[in-house]
Amino acid sequence: MSFVRNAWYVAGWSRDFGEPLRAMEILGQRLVMYRASDGTVTALEDRCPHRLLPLSKGKRIGDTIQCGYHGMTFDGAGNCVRVPGQDNTPKSAFVEAFPVEERHDIVWVWMGDPDLADPAQIFDMPEFTSPDWHAHQGEALHIEAHYLNVAENLVDPAHVSFVHPTTLGSAASENVPVHVSTGGDVITAWRWIRDAPPVGFFQKFGGFNGHVDRWHYYHLHLPSTAVIDFGSIATAENCAEDDRNRGVRIFALHFVTPVNEDRTIDHWMHLRNSALGDEEASAQMDAMFNVAFAEDKAVLEAVHENEKRPQRRRPIRIAIDKGPNVYRKRIRDLVAAESTEDLGAAEGASFVHHD
Amino acid sequence: MSFVRNAWYVAGWSRDFGEPLRAMEILGQRLVMYRASDGTVTALEDRCPHRLLPLSKGKRIGDTIQCGYHGMTFDGAGNCVRVPGQDNTPKSAFVEAFPVEERHDIVWVWMGDPDLADPAQIFDMPEFTSPDWHAHQGEALHIEAHYLNVAENLVDPAHVSFVHPTTLGSAASENVPVHVSTGGDVITAWRWIRDAPPVGFFQKFGGFNGHVDRWHYYHLHLPSTAVIDFGSIATAENCAEDDRNRGVRIFALHFVTPVNEDRTIDHWMHLRNSALGDEEASAQMDAMFNVAFAEDKAVLEAVHENEKRPQRRRPIRIAIDKGPNVYRKRIRDLVAAESTEDLGAAEGASFVHHD
Amino acid sequence: MSFVRNAWYVAGWSRDFGEPLRAMEILGQRLVMYRASDGTVTALEDRCPHRLLPLSKGKRIGDTIQCGYHGMTFDGAGNCVRVPGQDNTPKSAFVEAFPVEERHDIVWVWMGDPDLADPAQIFDMPEFTSPDWHAHQGEALHIEAHYLNVAENLVDPAHVSFVHPTTLGSAASENVPVHVSTGGDVITAWRWIRDAPPVGFFQKFGGFNGHVDRWHYYHLHLPSTAVIDFGSIATAENCAEDDRNRGVRIFALHFVTPVNEDRTIDHWMHLRNSALGDEEASAQMDAMFNVAFAEDKAVLEAVHENEKRPQRRRPIRIAIDKGPNVYRKRIRDLVAAESTEDLGAAEGASFVHHD
Repeated sequence: MSFVRNAWYVAGWSRDFGEPLRAMEILGQRLVMYRASDGTVTALEDRCPHRLLPLSKGKRIGDTIQCGYHGMTFDGAGNCVRVPGQDNTPKSAFVEAFPVEERHDIVWVWMGDPDLADPAQIFDMPEFTSPDWHAHQGEALHIEAHYLNVAENLVDPAHVSFVHPTTLGSAASENVPVHVSTGGDVITAWRWIRDAPPVGFFQKFGGFNGHVDRWHYYHLHLPSTAVIDFGSIATAENCAEDDRNRGVRIFALHFVTPVNEDRTIDHWMHLRNSALGDEEASAQMDAMFNVAFAEDKAVLEAVHENEKRPQRRRPIRIAIDKGPNVYRKRIRDLVAAESTEDLGAAEGASFVHHD
Repeated sequence: MSFVRNAWYVAGWSRDFGEPLRAMEILGQRLVMYRASDGTVTALEDRCPHRLLPLSKGKRIGDTIQCGYHGMTFDGAGNCVRVPGQDNTPKSAFVEAFPVEERHDIVWVWMGDPDLADPAQIFDMPEFTSPDWHAHQGEALHIEAHYLNVAENLVDPAHVSFVHPTTLGSAASENVPVHVSTGGDVITAWRWIRDAPPVGFFQKFGGFNGHVDRWHYYHLHLPSTAVIDFGSIATAENCAEDDRNRGVRIFALHFVTPVNEDRTIDHWMHLRNSALGDEEASAQMDAMFNVAFAEDKAVLEAVHENEKRPQRRRPIRIAIDKGPNVYRKRIRDLVAAESTEDLGAAEGASFVHHD
Repeated sequence: MSFVRNAWYVAGWSRDFGEPLRAMEILGQRLVMYRASDGTVTALEDRCPHRLLPLSKGKRIGDTIQCGYHGMTFDGAGNCVRVPGQDNTPKSAFVEAFPVEERHDIVWVWMGDPDLADPAQIFDMPEFTSPDWHAHQGEALHIEAHYLNVAENLVDPAHVSFVHPTTLGSAASENVPVHVSTGGDVITAWRWIRDAPPVGFFQKFGGFNGHVDRWHYYHLHLPSTAVIDFGSIATAENCAEDDRNRGVRIFALHFVTPVNEDRTIDHWMHLRNSALGDEEASAQMDAMFNVAFAEDKAVLEAVHENEKRPQRRRPIRIAIDKGPNVYRKRIRDLVAAESTEDLGAAEGASFVHHD
């Protein structure tokens, strides 16, 4: 297992949750989620403890869920409030409830020990609420690949020239060195490509004619939230590295949610300091992002498939892997730190036997 | 393994068997079946002992089957009667033959020790041949679920209110207690719902205007034949429990045949004491049954899928589970009683290796 | 494992290889193949050693392949010639290269120890280059079956009467005995059917009116190249066994390439001593072969599926199995002889773990 359980993961955008029961899977755990009458979002284990029908196949009775098989009913805290055919409710008649927080139109769920769930740890950045920035939520990209490969890709500027040659990158950057800093809970890889023609994206959205200075900063927040700060500014402007707001600047956010060992969902959105309130620009950017992310998806799924085959030689690592290497090391450490409690759970795991 | 081998299972209706070779699977055993020229039905192991081609891919030569690969030919008893290219037939050149009995337009096959096959044990009831009753064979419901879950569902009146709220049940019955008797080879669960509006089925077929008394008797005959005796009578008639023929009464029969550990076929039919000879009524009832059984199928397949996932907690049992609990206990006992002979067979099991 | 590694296998016809990168799998090994600018065909391991993306998802830069993920580049010998972002190339940055030979418009690849690859061992026969013979390459038949079953079928005259009753065989041959010789690296099974009506194929292509003498010689060259010498001649001609060129004679060649344990490709072609240069006749023959090979495919895939099920009894062998039995014995011996080196490779095999 390679999942960090004590963490907040994005379950979806606020607009995705309403009255209907919604079935999801995060870290191999099936969830049923819905928005309760007080506006908060509920996340419960999607498995009736009686005959194991997913509760998402049942129906809402007010803010409770009635199982679709025998009518056992659970409230938003996972407590059983009714067992048809009897008056008492067995102690074991409950489902797990998962802490949920919602902010900036994003719904987060905590997959670990509920006692450790601290809303202050939820990913935040000031641009979410600044009037100088425009936020736009994109779609959910479903990828048949392990989440570590998806997240690693997001702290890996070196792939851009080869995977996205017509959209986000160009051959001009192939040999530009990548800097990496690895302090705290964020790993950052970055590079500047100075004095080069604008790439496709900024040809379209920047209105640049001549050469530009272009930057990519890949910030990967553990366990799997990526902030890609990228932008361009006319080379003539002589922009300093920390003065990037002078250019056309975009934060592409990727909230990488592991579904299970073979599938991952990337909820992506962006923040930008130009074209504020321009939904036409948002739609055009989404279209370009969709092209680029389909390129990532094709690569990641082919890698995943090849990784599942027997390997006679270990993969090699090269200089550009510094960010990914540090990232994987940090995840291993986090998983190891959680392993004592996980071990107990794993030992208790079993299957239903009909014998 | 959870199969009771020494038992008669329904392979299909008489109309399903004729000249063509028909491939089936029962208890994980592949069979080829056909109707011989004397009108009897033959069931053979569907695997040529030579190169393992299913005999159902071959062709009939009179009452024998000629394998489609090298022409080895078997009679209805499974004996090899021809080996092309040689004069003698090796002792090991045979396929298993399974006893078959046909009655009341139903074809039964015995999956265990042929020496124990006793036609007197085949399920029977007097209404099959009574002129006061109309028999109508429905279809075969293919369910991606374990047979114990399918059969359990048929001794479980409590699910009707929740799975079939618009057809066979209603909210009025949700809390009516269930009685269970467990004598002999039949487990029976039943309840009466007195003085309530008629449910959808009897609104349509009973012609009732006012309140009715409604009954459900679920008889589950080991290993997996269910008789659901259900009906309605005007409440004003003051019907005694054992005087149900006065009302509109239906026996819904379910012959549950395990295909393998993941699939089950439910051959269903009914007997009724009204609308005798009315094929229009039969068709309308089939349509309603199809709606209800599709509801069961959806629930059972979702349960099966969830059961195959790792379980961190054991499923719980509640008061309404008395019938299912007793049923599973009986099956476990039957399987255990057969296990000595099964053990020998299982130890001999192997795969074909190309090495 | 049942693969003979030190052998030449057919990867395809010459016409199948050109500029584009072509992904294949042989003996469970994924390959990327392409024709280089000097006209030779290259075969490399289809797996970048860095992040395991198949190189076939990358692009050609001249005669090298640039990986589609991070641009690592490999020449036709499998050597890494570029690692973007650094100047040196790690010693472990290579992919395996497989020897390739091309002759008679057939592309062969050597899957074993490159030091043992001897082009002189490639299958050859004088009719390839004789002006008295017409060569015609057919298609590639993809079969979901183990290659031993596919190859065995090609040294098995006995199946023709039953699998191909309307095309290549007839009931007249069902009981004609089969001769087998097993010297050297070729197993041969053959029989003559004397004085019988011509079968469908020779009715169409031989122009025979009366009875013919018909022969089938099945030569199976280890590990899996089959030459089926078949033909017909008017019975009145009194043809001696070794004077077959007097009749209408066809060599059907089958180059059986194991993809993995569950899939096989049969590249088939023929050589004939009639209708030289007649492409219409070639197309008509292809059409008849396609009918016959679809019959084989259906049988072989059904056998493969049944072989993967648990077996309570061993398959039996009969007199007509002499050729197949010897063939399997030879393969076992070859595999055993290679096992010492294989063992080392297998012990080194592992999977990528995300932990």
